[in-house]
Amino acid sequence: MDNYQVGDLVSIKTENTQYIGIVMPSLDEDILVIKMKNGYNVGISKRRIVSIEKIEGSKTPKYRKPEVIFENKGNLKNISILSTGGTVASRVDYNTGAVHPAFTAEDLILAFPELLEIGNILGRPLMNILSENILPLHWKRIAEEIKREVENGAEGIVITHGTDTMHYTAAALSFMVETNIPVVLVGAQRSSDRPSSDAPLNLISAVMVATEPIKGVYVVMHGESGDTFTYLHEGVKVRKYHTSRRDAFRSVNTIPIAKIYPTSRRIEYIREVNNKVEGEDPKVEINTNLEERVALIKIYPGIEGDIIDYYVDKGYKGILLEGTGLGHAPETIFNNIKYAIDSGLLVAMASQCINGRVNMNVYSNGRKLLRLGVIPCEDMLPEVALVKMMYLLGNYSVEEAKKLLTENLKGEITLRTRFDCY
Amino acid sequence: MDNYQVGDLVSIKTENTQYIGIVMPSLDEDILVIKMKNGYNVGISKRRIVSIEKIEGSKTPKYRKPEVIFENKGNLKNISILSTGGTVASRVDYNTGAVHPAFTAEDLILAFPELLEIGNILGRPLMNILSENILPLHWKRIAEEIKREVENGAEGIVITHGTDTMHYTAAALSFMVETNIPVVLVGAQRSSDRPSSDAPLNLISAVMVATEPIKGVYVVMHGESGDTFTYLHEGVKVRKYHTSRRDAFRSVNTIPIAKIYPTSRRIEYIREVNNKVEGEDPKVEINTNLEERVALIKIYPGIEGDIIDYYVDKGYKGILLEGTGLGHAPETIFNNIKYAIDSGLLVAMASQCINGRVNMNVYSNGRKLLRLGVIPCEDMLPEVALVKMMYLLGNYSVEEAKKLLTENLKGEITLRTRFDCY
Ligand SMILES: N[C@@H](CC(=O)O)C(=O)O
Ligand SMILES: N[C@@H](CC(=O)O)C(=O)O
Repeated sequence: MDNYQVGDLVSIKTENTQYIGIVMPSLDEDILVIKMKNGYNVGISKRRIVSIEKIEGSKTPKYRKPEVIFENKGNLKNISILSTGGTVASRVDYNTGAVHPAFTAEDLILAFPELLEIGNILGRPLMNILSENILPLHWKRIAEEIKREVENGAEGIVITHGTDTMHYTAAALSFMVETNIPVVLVGAQRSSDRPSSDAPLNLISAVMVATEPIKGVYVVMHGESGDTFTYLHEGVKVRKYHTSRRDAFRSVNTIPIAKIYPTSRRIEYIREVNNKVEGEDPKVEINTNLEERVALIKIYPGIEGDIIDYYVDKGYKGILLEGTGLGHAPETIFNNIKYAIDSGLLVAMASQCINGRVNMNVYSNGRKLLRLGVIPCEDMLPEVALVKMMYLLGNYSVEEAKKLLTENLKGEITLRTRFDCY
Repeated sequence: MDNYQVGDLVSIKTENTQYIGIVMPSLDEDILVIKMKNGYNVGISKRRIVSIEKIEGSKTPKYRKPEVIFENKGNLKNISILSTGGTVASRVDYNTGAVHPAFTAEDLILAFPELLEIGNILGRPLMNILSENILPLHWKRIAEEIKREVENGAEGIVITHGTDTMHYTAAALSFMVETNIPVVLVGAQRSSDRPSSDAPLNLISAVMVATEPIKGVYVVMHGESGDTFTYLHEGVKVRKYHTSRRDAFRSVNTIPIAKIYPTSRRIEYIREVNNKVEGEDPKVEINTNLEERVALIKIYPGIEGDIIDYYVDKGYKGILLEGTGLGHAPETIFNNIKYAIDSGLLVAMASQCINGRVNMNVYSNGRKLLRLGVIPCEDMLPEVALVKMMYLLGNYSVEEAKKLLTENLKGEITLRTRFDCY
């Protein structure tokens, strides 16, 4: 039965299905991976194979962009993995200790063939950059590629991404992409070629989630420092909380949606989630209008207010203040805030405390800011409020944007904070 | 025995001590509070009183700045409470729900006479402002007043302070004040006149700590949402993490120093602390030089680098970048960072992840920043790194400041992070 090699076009029969495609390299001896015409990779347990017939021998010894003539995917869902770079797709240079982006989505599938037991996987590299260099223009590109994938038949989408700014991208996609399938961002804190890498478990978990009957944008990352489970976080309620630990991401002002046990392929939902409507076909709409002239200013004792004037005079449309406590800024910068608002900017307030809700009615300082017209961002993370402002100001008038900023559009505002999430 | 009234100068005898002072109002019927000549208030359990002799009747019916002619403090330590404002010294306006600063340190002592069982308490108002309005100039004033108190005989100091920026002030005092007694900042999340206020427990805990044989600057705040214990945090390793909960403060990249059980007057140390040298007299040195032209810039996707140029051209001396992940900033602003460094500014990097350590050797982005001359701030909180830069640039050349920034001066850098602090 081993009369084939990587690159061959083969026809494979199992008890009840026939697959035709190109043989791909597989790191798992028990699994045969083939790439089908539509680009999806299928992993077939060798135990299930009844016969393999070589249709055409490979021309090149290594794998190449294959041409597949027939498809039959069995009953697994089509999951697209789009790679953007980051550690999850990196190799360590053992001479220098430095980490370089190296793997594409395709490489990841080859490295972790068990993914193919979970879905029919298509891997496509979008870009290969560290997420510290991700810009709003990349968010737009990712949104466009998500649209393309759904239109090409994807039923779930996984985006591998650097962890530095993964939560900013998750927030941006939450607002920009309207879909009824899951879009799951996943990263890793240790590069994929390290024995201690969290990439395999994170990736398997993300693909598991991508096959679930849920919709919206999510983040999947390790749940603890061991290898037991990962967490499913809402894309608008999560942040990177640690520079280096595997369990670096935490849901804020809510708890994660689910615990995922990748080894036993089990997902345990621990709170409500946006369910997909049963039987609906995958749908997607995107809106990539963004006003990028929105600044985030973190408040600190002694901050000089003219930094606000600077942004106003530069033509900025919005300023998010990351204030102290319940949403405060020193009185010394009130005049500058007034100048910004009088000039037509949207000025909003989130808290650098991170946890909890802004409440500007308690102290005189907050009341004065409210009277100036500063918009309180409820329990939104500053990062999410910033991205939401970019989205709103890209699509609405300042007056409408002000109103929508305090409304819950995508789960970014919870009306009542759970007691068990701090 | 009740032949005295508030304002009278009296001589009180207990079994083994004589006290002479002015009778102060007390909310606790069982305790007689008198203010002695040196300004300290002593609380004497009425059960212990053998005789009270009126030396001079009060001229005014309410209490006034008393003139006391004799002192005898028993064996309790002299603790000065300096009030600066904030909720811990506020009243709720039950009509509007707004909170106004109202109490001075003196009022707090009268409201919580049990403090007088712990130490001889002197209360002095320094200012009455919400901490969102605290500026570096206030840090200097507080440092000067600490010096004055120690020189006047204080053996421990408690500073009541708003919680919004208490951790910035704690960091500033850590660098500015060199003393061998404890300086304890304390606040409250609910105003003192509310039944649910955390002020009494926090304040009692802070005074307890102020009598301990330890030295340095600390923060004391509730340890959980109940009323069981408070935490003693290192002043350079703590931040406000929640907008409204009583347990809003958390130690970061370390654990708290002690758990304090105010009801049973017990302090349980859970890690090492800077001990005072046994038998030493209270000493204090202050250094209030600060370079206030230091900016904190939080990095986010799409940030424009010319904000850095703006600060350079304005004559700033330092910029602290609150970068992503292990200490990164987008490549798009590298030129601006180079401009700042070439112009002689100290540019440093802390992480917006808050937890964990900056490590700029892992990714190409960080390496390039290091090569440009950006100084990595180890595991310092951004807030602490900012204040440390103000302090260093106020006292040293840029070259010396660069070196000292990465050295541990006051516990702000831990060489090895405990695993149990995240
Ligand atoms: N600096 C990397 C870190 C990671 O991927 O975890 C990035 O965000 O791309
Ligand atoms: N905004 C108040 C809050 C407090 O005291 O807790 C302040 O910082 O002064």
